[in-house]
Order: sequence, then structure tokens, then C-alpha cells
Amino acid sequence: MALPGCHGPGQAAPVTTLPLSPTDRSTVHRGARRARTDRADLYAVLDAGLIGHLGMTLDAGPLVIPTGYGRDGETLYLHGSSGAASLRAAAAGTPVCFTVTQVDGIVYSRSAFHHSMNYRCAVVQGMARPVTDPDDRWHGLGVLTEHLAPGSWTATRQPDRRELAATAVLALDLAEASVKIRTGPPGEDERDLAPGAPPVWAGVLPLTTAWGTPEPCPLLAVGVAVPDRITRR
Amino acid sequence: MALPGCHGPGQAAPVTTLPLSPTDRSTVHRGARRARTDRADLYAVLDAGLIGHLGMTLDAGPLVIPTGYGRDGETLYLHGSSGAASLRAAAAGTPVCFTVTQVDGIVYSRSAFHHSMNYRCAVVQGMARPVTDPDDRWHGLGVLTEHLAPGSWTATRQPDRRELAATAVLALDLAEASVKIRTGPPGEDERDLAPGAPPVWAGVLPLTTAWGTPEPCPLLAVGVAVPDRITRR
Repeated sequence: MALPGCHGPGQAAPVTTLPLSPTDRSTVHRGARRARTDRADLYAVLDAGLIGHLGMTLDAGPLVIPTGYGRDGETLYLHGSSGAASLRAAAAGTPVCFTVTQVDGIVYSRSAFHHSMNYRCAVVQGMARPVTDPDDRWHGLGVLTEHLAPGSWTATRQPDRRELAATAVLALDLAEASVKIRTGPPGEDERDLAPGAPPVWAGVLPLTTAWGTPEPCPLLAVGVAVPDRITRR
Repeated sequence: MALPGCHGPGQAAPVTTLPLSPTDRSTVHRGARRARTDRADLYAVLDAGLIGHLGMTLDAGPLVIPTGYGRDGETLYLHGSSGAASLRAAAAGTPVCFTVTQVDGIVYSRSAFHHSMNYRCAVVQGMARPVTDPDDRWHGLGVLTEHLAPGSWTATRQPDRRELAATAVLALDLAEASVKIRTGPPGEDERDLAPGAPPVWAGVLPLTTAWGTPEPCPLLAVGVAVPDRITRR
């Protein structure tokens, strides 16, 4: 990862039968002490995120776009307008990289160099495939909708044929993936901790996300209350 | 963008002399009603973000990594370990795409299809160049540090020669960039608003980020207070 360099405490995790990072390109070379090897960490990072960044190589060069997603087991579903060039390219079998990152805090160090961030990041590489089977598409759209807005798939009008045709659904296997997580206080140079070093504050400023107060649609009929699926979020 | 499709209210913005999206690849084709044309919007999105996602094409395929950055005028500075393959490739003149996205809320619609997100997204494309001049590198590192942790560049120990050598600093011009912003309530199909349609709640659930309580480094000397540069953040 290219987040600013700093030393995080290592954290051992049990290795399951299906390892992360099975290939050279999915093996963490820089900052390997932050790499995780448990697929549970991959699932946790993906399930906690809201959007990811989908990268691919088009004729005009690399393109990175924010993209909604949803996970079902070892499959990541992505979707977007069936007319978008990026989605068309991905659906035609372009190799892609899909990255989900949460920033958890700013790491303040006694030196500029050791400033860093606490974060969780999952990188998935592979070939996205178009989901064309009607039942699979329906399932994928349900997974995508539930990731974005839990409970909405069954509580709102489901897609009709025209809406289905306007939506490209892609699937990406989680076979090739890596996870990096940084937690904890700054790593420091010995000299910055030595007696007589300037008394500079160091530590972590946590960054959290929170849901605000629901803002009803101006066209909402009188008396339609905010449903549980939103208030309990 | 591949965020889920929905209709956002357009918002006019004055066009400055240096337009956004000057090339075909940086012109927003899908969801053009959400495209902005004012460079002030580009600056605002970049200045509000904390990390971006840097995409490039390596031999093994596309790679997208979270990356710290800082902006000075029309220049975006990126940095990372000078040993990272991705940074080395970018420094050697690989075309890159750098994307910064903020999610501002979940848009709940009366239909699954019109669920969406409110977001601000800047996409910058171009050739990253290594910053090698010592004064320029120093300046770039100051910009990067101040973006991550305002006030830290002068309040903490600045880099020595070894630390400078370990850090790759790249510059990316903001010449080719596009901005998309979605705000406001869901766009709906007429049928879902018609009399007799099911009374489904619709609106926006805002998503906000907030700083938590600073967590001091366990090695912090007694009596070192949290500085203003952090408490006023």
C-alpha cells in the first residue's frame, strides 16, 4: 500500500484452508507486517465497506471509478449502468482490480516521516465476468441492494424487465485477494523517544463514520414513518 | 461513475478559464447531469478527501491502491515507499488515474432500481512524474504532511536524509480531471409516486465522518497536552 510509511504492531491470525494472497501479484511485498492471511479479515473489510474503487485498463489508460458492491460467499457482485464504457469493458473480460479501504484514524508521530493512518484495505484482482443468467442476475441485484440498503430489496418495488436491462451485473471471484490492516500507535525512531527529545504529542486521532438523521423525500406522503430497516442502521 | 443509477438535481456552477474535462477520456459520458465544470469543485473535493485510490497498469494487470496525497494549486502530490513496485512504476512514467470519493449518504428510493448514493468524486488522469529536485521534494512532503495532519510539518521533526531517500514523491498535474457530485432526494419513476402506489419511505440517510477522542501514544511523556492543531480539527 502507498499509505504513508509507519510501523504497526503485527497481529497474528489463524490461517484457514483457503489462503489469501495465493499468487505473487496478490502477495503483499511492502509493509508485509500489516498483511493478513485469514479470509475472515477479507470478509470483514468487504462487509464493512460501502463502496470500492474499480480499476481497469481502457484504451485511453487506467481508469478508477467508485463502485457499489455486495458480497455473497466467495463472490463479489458489482453493478452499474449497462451503457458505461468501464462496465462494458469489465463485462467483456478485462482484468480488474477492486479495492475497498476504510480509514480509521490519523497517526500523529513525533516526526513528519512517521505520520501515518490506521486503515483496513482489501485488494481483489481478477477477471470480472458478466452475470447473464436471469436467476443469477436477480440474486446478484438482491445482494447489491442489501449491501447498500439492508432490507430494501424486499421492502421496495423490485426491478422490472426494463430496469434489469439497464443494469450491468458483474461477478468477481475472491480467489486472488490481499488484506492490509494498520492499527495502533505510531512507530517512532529511537532518537525521537530518547531523553531530551522535544516533547511532541503523538498518538492516534480516530476517524469514525456515523449515520445522520434521515431526510424524507419532499414527495413523501404524510404519515409514512422512517422504517426500522433505516432507524436500526 | 458506476455508483448506482439515480437522478440527481443538476446544479449550475460558473465556468472558469481553465475548464475541467478538456479531453474525451476525462469527459463524463454516463450521468452527465452530475458532472461539474468548475475547477473550484475539483479543488473542494480533493481538499476535503483524506486518501485517494491510485490506479495503474502493471505487468500483472491493473492495480488500485489507497494513497495519501496533498494539493498545491494545480499539482497533486502523492507519496509512498520508494521501494513499492507501484510507486516505482508510476515514477517511471506510467499513466495513472487517481480518484478521490466521499460518500455523503444513502439514497433510499421507493424502488430497488432507484436506490443510490449521494457522493462527491474527482477523477484525475495523467502521467505522474517523480519529484527529484531537493527543494521541490521538501515542498511536496510539506504539502503531503499538511494535508494528512495540518500543523504537523512544522510541529514535528522534519525528515533527515535517510528518510527523504526512503520516500518517493510524485507529482500529478490536475490538467485532465473530472468531477461528479450527486446531491438531493431520490429520483423516482412516475408509477411509484402515483396515487395508490405502496407508501414506501424514501429519502436520504446522511453519512458523516467525525473525529474521535485523541488516543495518546503509550510512550508519551507525562504532561504533553493534545495540541491545538489536533483539538481544533
